[in-house]
Amino acid sequence: MSSTYGENLKLSIFGQSHGAGIGMTLDGIPAGLPVDLDTLQAFLNRRAPGQNEYSTTRKEEDRPEFLAGLHNGYTCGAPIAALIRNNNTRSGDYSNLKDCPRPGHADYTAQVKYGGFQDPAGGGHFSGRLTAPLCIAGGLCKQWLQQMGIEVSAHILCIDGECDDPFDPMTPQLEQVGSDFPVLSVEAGERMKQKISQAKSQLDSVGGIIECAVTGLPAGLGDPMFGGMESRIAQIVYGIPAVKSVDFGMGYAVGYARGSQCNDAFVVENGQIRTVTNRCGGILGGITNGMPLIFQAAIKPTPSIAMPQQSVSLSKTENTTLEIHGRHDPCIVPRAVPVVEAAAAIAIFDAYLTRCRETGR
Amino acid sequence: MSSTYGENLKLSIFGQSHGAGIGMTLDGIPAGLPVDLDTLQAFLNRRAPGQNEYSTTRKEEDRPEFLAGLHNGYTCGAPIAALIRNNNTRSGDYSNLKDCPRPGHADYTAQVKYGGFQDPAGGGHFSGRLTAPLCIAGGLCKQWLQQMGIEVSAHILCIDGECDDPFDPMTPQLEQVGSDFPVLSVEAGERMKQKISQAKSQLDSVGGIIECAVTGLPAGLGDPMFGGMESRIAQIVYGIPAVKSVDFGMGYAVGYARGSQCNDAFVVENGQIRTVTNRCGGILGGITNGMPLIFQAAIKPTPSIAMPQQSVSLSKTENTTLEIHGRHDPCIVPRAVPVVEAAAAIAIFDAYLTRCRETGR
Amino acid sequence: MSSTYGENLKLSIFGQSHGAGIGMTLDGIPAGLPVDLDTLQAFLNRRAPGQNEYSTTRKEEDRPEFLAGLHNGYTCGAPIAALIRNNNTRSGDYSNLKDCPRPGHADYTAQVKYGGFQDPAGGGHFSGRLTAPLCIAGGLCKQWLQQMGIEVSAHILCIDGECDDPFDPMTPQLEQVGSDFPVLSVEAGERMKQKISQAKSQLDSVGGIIECAVTGLPAGLGDPMFGGMESRIAQIVYGIPAVKSVDFGMGYAVGYARGSQCNDAFVVENGQIRTVTNRCGGILGGITNGMPLIFQAAIKPTPSIAMPQQSVSLSKTENTTLEIHGRHDPCIVPRAVPVVEAAAAIAIFDAYLTRCRETGR
Amino acid sequence: MSSTYGENLKLSIFGQSHGAGIGMTLDGIPAGLPVDLDTLQAFLNRRAPGQNEYSTTRKEEDRPEFLAGLHNGYTCGAPIAALIRNNNTRSGDYSNLKDCPRPGHADYTAQVKYGGFQDPAGGGHFSGRLTAPLCIAGGLCKQWLQQMGIEVSAHILCIDGECDDPFDPMTPQLEQVGSDFPVLSVEAGERMKQKISQAKSQLDSVGGIIECAVTGLPAGLGDPMFGGMESRIAQIVYGIPAVKSVDFGMGYAVGYARGSQCNDAFVVENGQIRTVTNRCGGILGGITNGMPLIFQAAIKPTPSIAMPQQSVSLSKTENTTLEIHGRHDPCIVPRAVPVVEAAAAIAIFDAYLTRCRETGR
Repeated sequence: MSSTYGENLKLSIFGQSHGAGIGMTLDGIPAGLPVDLDTLQAFLNRRAPGQNEYSTTRKEEDRPEFLAGLHNGYTCGAPIAALIRNNNTRSGDYSNLKDCPRPGHADYTAQVKYGGFQDPAGGGHFSGRLTAPLCIAGGLCKQWLQQMGIEVSAHILCIDGECDDPFDPMTPQLEQVGSDFPVLSVEAGERMKQKISQAKSQLDSVGGIIECAVTGLPAGLGDPMFGGMESRIAQIVYGIPAVKSVDFGMGYAVGYARGSQCNDAFVVENGQIRTVTNRCGGILGGITNGMPLIFQAAIKPTPSIAMPQQSVSLSKTENTTLEIHGRHDPCIVPRAVPVVEAAAAIAIFDAYLTRCRETGR
Repeated sequence: MSSTYGENLKLSIFGQSHGAGIGMTLDGIPAGLPVDLDTLQAFLNRRAPGQNEYSTTRKEEDRPEFLAGLHNGYTCGAPIAALIRNNNTRSGDYSNLKDCPRPGHADYTAQVKYGGFQDPAGGGHFSGRLTAPLCIAGGLCKQWLQQMGIEVSAHILCIDGECDDPFDPMTPQLEQVGSDFPVLSVEAGERMKQKISQAKSQLDSVGGIIECAVTGLPAGLGDPMFGGMESRIAQIVYGIPAVKSVDFGMGYAVGYARGSQCNDAFVVENGQIRTVTNRCGGILGGITNGMPLIFQAAIKPTPSIAMPQQSVSLSKTENTTLEIHGRHDPCIVPRAVPVVEAAAAIAIFDAYLTRCRETGR
Repeated sequence: MSSTYGENLKLSIFGQSHGAGIGMTLDGIPAGLPVDLDTLQAFLNRRAPGQNEYSTTRKEEDRPEFLAGLHNGYTCGAPIAALIRNNNTRSGDYSNLKDCPRPGHADYTAQVKYGGFQDPAGGGHFSGRLTAPLCIAGGLCKQWLQQMGIEVSAHILCIDGECDDPFDPMTPQLEQVGSDFPVLSVEAGERMKQKISQAKSQLDSVGGIIECAVTGLPAGLGDPMFGGMESRIAQIVYGIPAVKSVDFGMGYAVGYARGSQCNDAFVVENGQIRTVTNRCGGILGGITNGMPLIFQAAIKPTPSIAMPQQSVSLSKTENTTLEIHGRHDPCIVPRAVPVVEAAAAIAIFDAYLTRCRETGR
Repeated sequence: MSSTYGENLKLSIFGQSHGAGIGMTLDGIPAGLPVDLDTLQAFLNRRAPGQNEYSTTRKEEDRPEFLAGLHNGYTCGAPIAALIRNNNTRSGDYSNLKDCPRPGHADYTAQVKYGGFQDPAGGGHFSGRLTAPLCIAGGLCKQWLQQMGIEVSAHILCIDGECDDPFDPMTPQLEQVGSDFPVLSVEAGERMKQKISQAKSQLDSVGGIIECAVTGLPAGLGDPMFGGMESRIAQIVYGIPAVKSVDFGMGYAVGYARGSQCNDAFVVENGQIRTVTNRCGGILGGITNGMPLIFQAAIKPTPSIAMPQQSVSLSKTENTTLEIHGRHDPCIVPRAVPVVEAAAAIAIFDAYLTRCRETGR
């Protein structure tokens, strides 16, 4: 498994943070789907670092080269492969990390798992940088879903306790999400930015919650049990580094509620069957019910904080103090918003392919 | 995908609630693993209904027949197959559900997905009854993990807002979990039971949170990205009907916290590397770090409540009122506790097989 | 992998020759496909032993019980599960085989692979008996293909050097295959029967070649590289015990030929594109070209022969002589004919599901 | 599926003949395996064109760039990714092929499958050029197997009816295979070359048979049914374009033989259990028995022949005559020899990983 996802489509992500390049292969995509590379680039730019004062000052060129799978602007049926060259890497920043694992990072677990053979520079294959190829695949799926009238959009629901308005679960206000800072309420966004600035000035970082909504979904996507939409989305969203919680609809709150507070009554509206509320987040029995699909993902604060931290020397097996230098985001949540969208789009497009297989539509 | 799970092991679950039987096949298990059928039965009994006043009065014999894969008390290398016959079904109770979908259930989405060909009786393949074969597979994995010193144990953390003590994330008090009602605090358990009784008397139901801990895990289990322990566990736990939230470690709370409040400092203790806290729930970069693995799953209240609910007639496409009769749990959370353990055990055993493959140990 | 097959459908076969039962689960099948159980039984009977003097005198009731997945005569979308109980087993016949492996059987390799934990009776999971559940799955797929106008039919091309007429690769004479003894030429069949009788009387056995044709296939099924029709069919046909060769179209003979003797010229015929010859067996680049798909599978002689054979005692690590008693087919080729059809039908139906997924038709 | 292979390892091959590049990702490989890039290059050079008069005069630089997965000369646990840039392509040669499919090629079937969206230049994703990335993956697996004492080696058994000596199935004379022209008998090689020259001068091409042997294999690799070594090897070998037959051990000849002529008697030799003959090709019940694994693959003649051929115009749906220009091998069999080795090495290494998973060794 590891870096491979999908039931019908097969997404395989490769690369290490400071290696020659990062990229992905995406097999199993139907031929004849149009690809707009400018739209894709605009989507990737939302994830790219160095765009404002709230993210790292590293400048990365997340400009993919498509090696295969496209022909005359359409998918050609062959596996799609794309590559982003790594530039602007400063491996020297990470020279001592092989011996002294950073708290909250995969340095130590990678050391144990790979017996010291892992590529430690910049977190190697565990780097958040690997979400760029995820966004290539997800950006493509997002385009193809859009052509079917399916929109995938996310916003920051919360940063370090400062909360945005939630989506209206019946009619999520997708168009209201800010393009510069992805929130519904500009004012809430300003409070979040203050939280980020505060944390940065105190050599700390902050986490947050991302809420994602998918509209225009037909009823009937997803499968029973392990192929349910929750299973599919959770598996890929948890593949994004730093995610520690994935909730659907009312999520965690169902543990504090009664059945009469959680069930969504059915109603006929203009000859269509809908639900009066959308507490289930658009999923019943793992299968979409035609209402907006809504989920949340919690992102932990960037573990790379500038304040001194307690760690160990792996070679000497003794305690030590670690100071992390280098350019790190005080908050990765804004940049993680398109990544969550990408993950959701991939999972939904994969489930859509299952429906095609099962129904011939 | 649908009812199949696993990277190395291949679990396939079959059956409908009121069909001839339910069961599972489990391929890819090494030969020579001992199987204690009495221990397995005791585990299955924890999930079985009709055991006390807080669950349905239906009596189900969850006694599996092993059709294949065992020989002289050991796995023999061939796929394991087990069958539980369905008895004591009363299909008459569900006769009108094909036309009038129950709010909160998969009746409507199954109708759309399968075009009316689904088996509606008792929820068909979407029934909670399908967690019994999941517990067969999980009960076996639990035994095999136990022989390696790995314990998987869960308790009810919360029912309708009444909360148990949480596990100590550094040394989860697994032995303290009650065998009759799986909580740490007997007093909290009593308050939960009152909540269940109240809801029942008001023709309603209640949801809850289950907390699961895994101790004795070596560092190094799990894979990067989509093969991380979070992805693996979330995929299978979300395969349990009614789960709407899966969180690891601090979970949702990371969105309200700073890096300095989320990172776990490393320390050398008796020559071993450990963390001083366990906020990450024992997982870094998707890989176990040797600390207890801890996660929570939120279970929504039983959707089948006795009070009248608004629904629709699918044949007439008009609004109607639904009254659900039959024997339903006012709270499935206690019975879901072993199911969550089963799911976790399967995911962990599968990840363990990956480690064997990668390291030859 | 082992006993699991399929890209879209997931076939999992379980059982040991003398265990409680054998069976299969088949997940991923669309809902709403009709199932005719009488037709299926007639198909299974073609594989069943004890039907004439040329096969074993064992009587097996290959009558499957469907445990799940069917509802009112149609697939209901849930995984299909079927069970055949084992009766009429005489384990005593095999008592010494655990120590003394039969030449040509899996006794020795199973002993090494499973470290002595395997179920040896009757060959355990390696028994030819496991082809019965393969025929359940294949018989269903055959029905569904038939409704699309796709026929899968095989005949005995050769037994111990006595050869039937081959199929006409342009218009295979499927309707001419004998129902009693599946050959095109009754006379050739008689010669084959003599070969079988001779071998039997000399305490020996004979092998043969089966030729399978699939008509009515649309062009465009199959995928490049490892998903080509040859790869798909060969993987599953080689899953039938005793198969040692799988060839497509001209097969082995391409090694003795020139390009001008192997290429099939294209031609327009009634506005349709066809080929003038069908040397490629209906597959170009792994993808069907609309001509009949034709392949051959060679079946080795039953290894269980009555004449004394040289073997070893595994416990004493010394040479010994083995005499196999019990009821064994002197030739399994006639019974293998429906098994080859079943395997082909499964592979083709799986590839058809891929096409649905890719094209929405 | 399509261009993805593997149970434990996940090989994904991408690229079109005249696209930006071709390559592969290979996930699931243990960390810490050494990689000798010079040895790999020497292996790839065996497949490269333009090396002698018997192959195309195209010069291709099959020099892979490793983008990921290696670190300090070892696998680092992250997915391996490698890229070969396409140079020296002359797309003009293929300009009319989109409309006029070449007999024996995938032009027509790709057109039907992909609805005209395929990349036709040079055969696109169906080009034999895609065997180069297969050789990257296979060359790596071959190195790792070699360190365990497992050798994979193939030779040309036959070209257009001219036959080499076969391998001795008990002790295949691997070291005797010629490095320049891979045959055992130099004289037979000369006769083959004459056949190639003759065909070329007559604007034709020739096919052949490749025999592959694997020595040093432990007993116990492979799985029952669809995971047997025959199924595993056949699936990947049939992924090589032009293969039309895959046979193991006696192969097709088992259809002409008796059990007493096919069974391999067991014997104790120096305390080891071996077989007296090796008619089964080292595989019993799908599992290696410790004897050399031997199989054959038949390669059809290059379909691109210079003589005029009958074809059709897809746009006009009318008959036409096709003349193929460009640089084509009159015989691809010599270049296919390392490709067959590569495919076998991948299949065997994958099966070896299964054994590690099952036995912890």
